[in-house]
Amino acid sequence: MQLVHGGDWAGFETEYGRPPLDFSANVSPLGVPEAVQRAVQEAVSVADRYPDPLCRKLRQAIGETAGISPAWVLCGNGAADLIWRLAAAVCPREALIPAPTFAEYEAALNSVHCRVKRHSLLPESNFAIDESFVEAITTQTEMVFLCEPNNPTGRTTPVPILRRILDRCTAVGALLVVDECFMDFLDDPAAHTLLPQLKDHPNLVILKAFTKLYAMAGIRLGYALCSDETLLERMRLAGPPWSVSSLAQEAGCAALGEKKYVQQVRALIRSQRILLRQGLERLGLQVIPGEANYLLFRCTVPLLQPLREQGILLRGCGNYLGLDDNWYRTAVRTEPENCRLLAALEEILA
Amino acid sequence: MQLVHGGDWAGFETEYGRPPLDFSANVSPLGVPEAVQRAVQEAVSVADRYPDPLCRKLRQAIGETAGISPAWVLCGNGAADLIWRLAAAVCPREALIPAPTFAEYEAALNSVHCRVKRHSLLPESNFAIDESFVEAITTQTEMVFLCEPNNPTGRTTPVPILRRILDRCTAVGALLVVDECFMDFLDDPAAHTLLPQLKDHPNLVILKAFTKLYAMAGIRLGYALCSDETLLERMRLAGPPWSVSSLAQEAGCAALGEKKYVQQVRALIRSQRILLRQGLERLGLQVIPGEANYLLFRCTVPLLQPLREQGILLRGCGNYLGLDDNWYRTAVRTEPENCRLLAALEEILA
Repeated sequence: MQLVHGGDWAGFETEYGRPPLDFSANVSPLGVPEAVQRAVQEAVSVADRYPDPLCRKLRQAIGETAGISPAWVLCGNGAADLIWRLAAAVCPREALIPAPTFAEYEAALNSVHCRVKRHSLLPESNFAIDESFVEAITTQTEMVFLCEPNNPTGRTTPVPILRRILDRCTAVGALLVVDECFMDFLDDPAAHTLLPQLKDHPNLVILKAFTKLYAMAGIRLGYALCSDETLLERMRLAGPPWSVSSLAQEAGCAALGEKKYVQQVRALIRSQRILLRQGLERLGLQVIPGEANYLLFRCTVPLLQPLREQGILLRGCGNYLGLDDNWYRTAVRTEPENCRLLAALEEILA
Repeated sequence: MQLVHGGDWAGFETEYGRPPLDFSANVSPLGVPEAVQRAVQEAVSVADRYPDPLCRKLRQAIGETAGISPAWVLCGNGAADLIWRLAAAVCPREALIPAPTFAEYEAALNSVHCRVKRHSLLPESNFAIDESFVEAITTQTEMVFLCEPNNPTGRTTPVPILRRILDRCTAVGALLVVDECFMDFLDDPAAHTLLPQLKDHPNLVILKAFTKLYAMAGIRLGYALCSDETLLERMRLAGPPWSVSSLAQEAGCAALGEKKYVQQVRALIRSQRILLRQGLERLGLQVIPGEANYLLFRCTVPLLQPLREQGILLRGCGNYLGLDDNWYRTAVRTEPENCRLLAALEEILA
């Protein structure tokens, strides 16, 4: 069984009998917030009840935080669940996605036999999304996926181009799905999010997750925001009814109160991203100037196995369309952890 | 937003400001086992990691318990997740299911535009599945769903007929999916399960869940058993990769060690099912002789709202094809709880 994504600490443990230092998954390095842990620990005693299939309390809390109606919120078993539900609910005949990007968009679109057009992003422009992406949206296009910042490049689309992409989608009747799962790690998320556009654009869907910002990858919780409530209802019915566990619902409510944790992790990522990038560049590696909690870099020396032997997991990017085995993605973690990665790389490259 | 299933305690709480006594969901009334609670409470501290997408440790434990290879086990976000993945992986053109039965089979089959043939079960024969079901399986049939014991009737198919259904499916090249989620509540599950048939029938899929026996509905964990490993792999790829949370994986491993809890809940259900059935019959109600942890009964007096006002949730069966608003399903719970239900019913019917 082939795994598509990073984060396979369990495979490492099976092989080495101990946990790895995992740079292959992009989650907050500060661990699960205390309040989230407590919420789950309390919720489990009443977990004999089915989860609320409508996630009423959590949607209320998300709506308040985002400043929108809870009716515009649909929760899912991680953002990936919502990607698959979107594809199943809409069944587009043709969709446009960048390459490279997160693999689940294409996997979900393939499951409904959608024709997937790939718009290649180029290393020579640091994988920037530019005007040519707008032009690639045609009257045949029924759905567009954008990952902001993009995974695995960490790059964002300039806001004027984002707006032109949205306008073009509106003009041709396409649904624009913007995956903002990593957006909270940008220096200025408010300047970049399309949240204010939801109201006037029922063809805009924003995806978010608790996974990365709150280090809740194992709990599974994501959500979709859209002003087209009919679409959200179709998505809800496009899969099993109890997809969000009651533990995840309580965890999410607790996480939304963790303002200080969020400040800390954002400040940490902001400073460490710079240091890690400088460290990688000092080793002579080409680093894409990413803006998220991970960095894409190029190295012609094989790194995965030598790092693995030192107890470190990195994300090889050979299975991303548009990249090859010379590209790697590393999470940005705490200073001691980043230093350990840099030291290990230095040894391998020496 | 219309809810299809029972167990909507959250809707009750929103309306009444307190939790209901819930007979509308069929879970163990003994609550979440201590060991399961502890496992979740410990697992949450490392829930910053993605779940193992292959559920290696849990599949190993399930395989050992069932006496089969872990390669024959696929875990899911509740059994419902696996029902939807099955439909998506197989995409049958025509399927056969009984009526009434669990609604998710048809919902999942509809999602892949399958022609669903319904075989009507009749109240005059206590909704028995007989020889005519075997005859309803034709060369056009590509998938058959059976729920053993059936939900909401609580009835099982006689083993000789079950075997003939399996043989007929094998002969016509159909996949037989047997949902054994409630089987552990039968007096003699070993005599009824098709588990021993897996080896020689790659066209047999058995569905199981931790939901009911271990009172883990809120945690979400189910699994599919099949000797066709290729089919399981297609199911794994027919949805998002991290469907089973790390909390659920640890909860499942802990639950499998809870032998005493299982003995207790099975003994309780066995004795209380008899008492509850007798109590309902004393009230002049027609009760289907169910064998699971719930009972289907008929009452021409409206019950849902009057019970609701007394803080009790019952499952109205009007939205099951083949039943009408005069049919109700009640869970079998503890003696004091069952007595409270019977007293409330007596008052309403007086």
